[in-house]
Amino acid sequence: MILPIFLMFSFLLSSSSCNALDFCVADLKTPRGLAGYSCKKLELVTVDDFVFSGLHAGNTSNLIKAAVTPAFTAQFPGVNGLGISIARLDLAVGGVLPMHTHPDSSEIIVVIQGIIDAGFVSSANKVYFKTLKTGDIMVFPQGLLHFQINAGTTPALAYVSFSSPSPGVQILDFALFGNDLPSNIIEETTFLDDAQVKKLKGVLGGTG
Amino acid sequence: MILPIFLMFSFLLSSSSCNALDFCVADLKTPRGLAGYSCKKLELVTVDDFVFSGLHAGNTSNLIKAAVTPAFTAQFPGVNGLGISIARLDLAVGGVLPMHTHPDSSEIIVVIQGIIDAGFVSSANKVYFKTLKTGDIMVFPQGLLHFQINAGTTPALAYVSFSSPSPGVQILDFALFGNDLPSNIIEETTFLDDAQVKKLKGVLGGTG
Amino acid sequence: MILPIFLMFSFLLSSSSCNALDFCVADLKTPRGLAGYSCKKLELVTVDDFVFSGLHAGNTSNLIKAAVTPAFTAQFPGVNGLGISIARLDLAVGGVLPMHTHPDSSEIIVVIQGIIDAGFVSSANKVYFKTLKTGDIMVFPQGLLHFQINAGTTPALAYVSFSSPSPGVQILDFALFGNDLPSNIIEETTFLDDAQVKKLKGVLGGTG
Amino acid sequence: MILPIFLMFSFLLSSSSCNALDFCVADLKTPRGLAGYSCKKLELVTVDDFVFSGLHAGNTSNLIKAAVTPAFTAQFPGVNGLGISIARLDLAVGGVLPMHTHPDSSEIIVVIQGIIDAGFVSSANKVYFKTLKTGDIMVFPQGLLHFQINAGTTPALAYVSFSSPSPGVQILDFALFGNDLPSNIIEETTFLDDAQVKKLKGVLGGTG
Amino acid sequence: MILPIFLMFSFLLSSSSCNALDFCVADLKTPRGLAGYSCKKLELVTVDDFVFSGLHAGNTSNLIKAAVTPAFTAQFPGVNGLGISIARLDLAVGGVLPMHTHPDSSEIIVVIQGIIDAGFVSSANKVYFKTLKTGDIMVFPQGLLHFQINAGTTPALAYVSFSSPSPGVQILDFALFGNDLPSNIIEETTFLDDAQVKKLKGVLGGTG
Amino acid sequence: MILPIFLMFSFLLSSSSCNALDFCVADLKTPRGLAGYSCKKLELVTVDDFVFSGLHAGNTSNLIKAAVTPAFTAQFPGVNGLGISIARLDLAVGGVLPMHTHPDSSEIIVVIQGIIDAGFVSSANKVYFKTLKTGDIMVFPQGLLHFQINAGTTPALAYVSFSSPSPGVQILDFALFGNDLPSNIIEETTFLDDAQVKKLKGVLGGTG
Repeated sequence: MILPIFLMFSFLLSSSSCNALDFCVADLKTPRGLAGYSCKKLELVTVDDFVFSGLHAGNTSNLIKAAVTPAFTAQFPGVNGLGISIARLDLAVGGVLPMHTHPDSSEIIVVIQGIIDAGFVSSANKVYFKTLKTGDIMVFPQGLLHFQINAGTTPALAYVSFSSPSPGVQILDFALFGNDLPSNIIEETTFLDDAQVKKLKGVLGGTG
Repeated sequence: MILPIFLMFSFLLSSSSCNALDFCVADLKTPRGLAGYSCKKLELVTVDDFVFSGLHAGNTSNLIKAAVTPAFTAQFPGVNGLGISIARLDLAVGGVLPMHTHPDSSEIIVVIQGIIDAGFVSSANKVYFKTLKTGDIMVFPQGLLHFQINAGTTPALAYVSFSSPSPGVQILDFALFGNDLPSNIIEETTFLDDAQVKKLKGVLGGTG
Repeated sequence: MILPIFLMFSFLLSSSSCNALDFCVADLKTPRGLAGYSCKKLELVTVDDFVFSGLHAGNTSNLIKAAVTPAFTAQFPGVNGLGISIARLDLAVGGVLPMHTHPDSSEIIVVIQGIIDAGFVSSANKVYFKTLKTGDIMVFPQGLLHFQINAGTTPALAYVSFSSPSPGVQILDFALFGNDLPSNIIEETTFLDDAQVKKLKGVLGGTG
Repeated sequence: MILPIFLMFSFLLSSSSCNALDFCVADLKTPRGLAGYSCKKLELVTVDDFVFSGLHAGNTSNLIKAAVTPAFTAQFPGVNGLGISIARLDLAVGGVLPMHTHPDSSEIIVVIQGIIDAGFVSSANKVYFKTLKTGDIMVFPQGLLHFQINAGTTPALAYVSFSSPSPGVQILDFALFGNDLPSNIIEETTFLDDAQVKKLKGVLGGTG
Repeated sequence: MILPIFLMFSFLLSSSSCNALDFCVADLKTPRGLAGYSCKKLELVTVDDFVFSGLHAGNTSNLIKAAVTPAFTAQFPGVNGLGISIARLDLAVGGVLPMHTHPDSSEIIVVIQGIIDAGFVSSANKVYFKTLKTGDIMVFPQGLLHFQINAGTTPALAYVSFSSPSPGVQILDFALFGNDLPSNIIEETTFLDDAQVKKLKGVLGGTG
Repeated sequence: MILPIFLMFSFLLSSSSCNALDFCVADLKTPRGLAGYSCKKLELVTVDDFVFSGLHAGNTSNLIKAAVTPAFTAQFPGVNGLGISIARLDLAVGGVLPMHTHPDSSEIIVVIQGIIDAGFVSSANKVYFKTLKTGDIMVFPQGLLHFQINAGTTPALAYVSFSSPSPGVQILDFALFGNDLPSNIIEETTFLDDAQVKKLKGVLGGTG
């Protein structure tokens, strides 16, 4: 008759189950705080909070022939606070993921299908650039400009993991040309020509 | 007449008193967030939020002859956010605190009375095991399997400090045998025999 | 016709705009949490949350002839979570910022006008003390006692930056003499004479 | 003649190139420190420090029919300090990755081929268990017991990302039975039968 | 014949044993870095690095009738990097641990024998002060002035745990009076009288 | 005769002076580690390690009419590990600090003389842009594109504080055009015209 073991631990277990922070599935309806979202009540959490089946092939029928499908906190609340997330990257033939940064996250790409040219630029202004074959991985350090291009003749598929559950992404062209930043300010701070700035503002929906 | 010094600082002091984060006594009624609980209003905080008198001798009249009495955030809200907590460990003669881990916390034990066999296993699979006498301390690194056993002929008393205000605890036997994890899955992933698994499921209240 | 680029990114951009944590302007009406305040809704955030024009010259018409004007989270909610804040320090001729600590923050002072004697004491009990001229900077490590004194014959102006958005400040004289800490306790724990303690309690509004 | 721009920035750029910590490729010959390894000299760093082509199919011709091929700091020094790493998991038909923990890291699995049963147990003793299809992902919170089993009739392939560049791994059976932890201690702290303990010690090379 | 399991894991285990950071026993002969010391080679680490038997009763035959015996990284290298340490506090009848701060650490005291008056002052200038009986605990938040006094008629014994493996300690009287900080600077920044300053400088060995 | 107090503390003080991490003045000759440099020996540290007089007016006789003078770890080793640093920004009439990011640091600017147009772009692609007058401050969150322009008719002077002791800086034009990143890759990933890319490569010394 060993059953009392169970009783002995009941106080410890119930206190830990209420308070220990094994995980903190995001309750997306709560106000966002500095460290993410408040936690969904433990009794409402199920395995489906930790599993995500939505990383379907993205639609690459667009001009850059690329699609990113994220599993960040907004799509996959189980990663809230766990310091990690993932996304699927589809690049059709000729597809390009343009120059961008993640202000708060490093990234590892693993190539599942196809061939991808990838690179980043350090703050010492040096280019780290390589053609990745299927099965290769590459790491992009936090906050640095980087890009990925389908370098092959077949569609490419990759997964990209991040060191943040909600990585920000700042796409250079949208940051410069896709908003109301005045053209003269862009020109003064980037040395780009006025015609170039206005052409890209036209394409990307910018004003000013 | 030096009183104006007081006035001079009033702006600085009142602003800091509203916002500086000397401490953050947990308001346990707020939703739990990634970094713990929201703070009790400063004007409601008293010294009793920082003092705890509840570490009484635990009841060791159970089969493992052991009791853990915690002062974690749930019992002692003053530690919220301060990176530290403590618990009392009572081990009757023959008492055992079974193999367990703290997924997010390191631990130091100090033996107050008696003799305790304690040990942990590293991820390199090496055992660090020692008999602790009264007055000895031992540190258990975060996340590693460890245990404590009364190795003497008198009751043992110890305090265990943690590097987290709400340390989780995963007790191996409960994790494996005290829930509905299917027996065949346990057997495949632990190489334990079916009879052994079913016996312990019976003892610990597990199903499946 | 390159417009579809814009459409392609819309999913990614809208998800990141809802969740990425570029910044978290404090909503000061929410309960304070361990890591600061919850974030103001993104659609309500404007550039004025990131700009502060309130660092006016402080009123130094007081006995210590000094004034500190902060731009901490309470005054400047845009710094919430960004690991940095700033304050303006005015020291009239003879002005003194008395011995104090910041329990959770390091500090850099830059002298804009005048001459300032500044120093700190390490936990190894060593004094690091220097006369700073206009344009000089000095760093004060977290948690250590330090002070600043106008060492010149003209008013001094400085800015002090902190490694926390809400640095606490514990001014030694107020901590010891400006509250109800019993005189005998102060005397036992500081070795100060009873007359000295009671004199300063009188000046600083302390009781007991 | 715009060339002087280049000169103007030379001081800033050269200083940042010497000191800014964009990345810190591990120099594995230096002593390991708390936060990882010292950094390879910047002038010796090439793109090949950030690319790894060694995630080949593992050899699953063993009794558990499984293989893990890591790209951690030891194999892929470019991830040192970046808060992320990755490994390849091959599970032949019937393959099992036994019950284990990562004491300092959360994990995301993405299934590339096949079907995988995966699960973890929380410190509240609850099982989160699911069958993952190709394309599914699952997250395993830091420090908790978890496992993966090929649940299909074809080989399974997955990539597992970690929130640490050098995730530890504590495999339960090796921690308990693959070393010199005395049998009586194992039995007292796990409630396993003596015959079971000795049988597995025999299989896994343990003594005592 | 299940032995090949062992072989299968050999690569993973050997890599993790070389690199995973379960712990980092300080090699005190290496230069101190920001995050502590470099790690002792794993093959030299034994259980005795994690056990410390040196917390003997301190010698309280001194004027303050108190002694602190630390188990910090310098005495107990096993805690390096684990975010926790401990010390023993002996207070003879009439013993006092004078006003002090820990610039980088919170503290929990547990009273083992006797009665202790303990308190701290917040940066909002409020006193949190209480008489602790045997078995009581109290937490002192990081960086705030605090003290402990034997309030009983028998010797008191306590253990104090810290949220840092190498907590600094700044004892107010030594910081002010036990060094070469000029008397006039002390007087200007603390409002203490010249006679008081010079008396304590005399007692504590200060000059200037 | 109160002198023995001094002796009583000698053990505690000497141990803390050897090990407590009040500060860690960078020894720039040691290998750079993940968390910065190893610490200069305590007995060699003087107040001059914490004071810096080198923030002289920069030479703005260049095409962008701007100069940044840093006090980062490389110039001011005392800030190593303290989470803060500072630089001086001189902008002649017409001066511009071009579009750039700090991959690991937030920034606060305080305008000392003149008028400055400053702005940043969020990852949600929104512009936060304002004209700052003398005395105004603005905060730029970590990792986001930002810029500063002299908007007045007199030279402007500002100090910029950072939440890192060694903030990296990635200047957009140098990252894109000042290295050997192939023109076709730039064009594919930025949508800039070939002529524009080649013109700026010519100006900024890029090849390829």
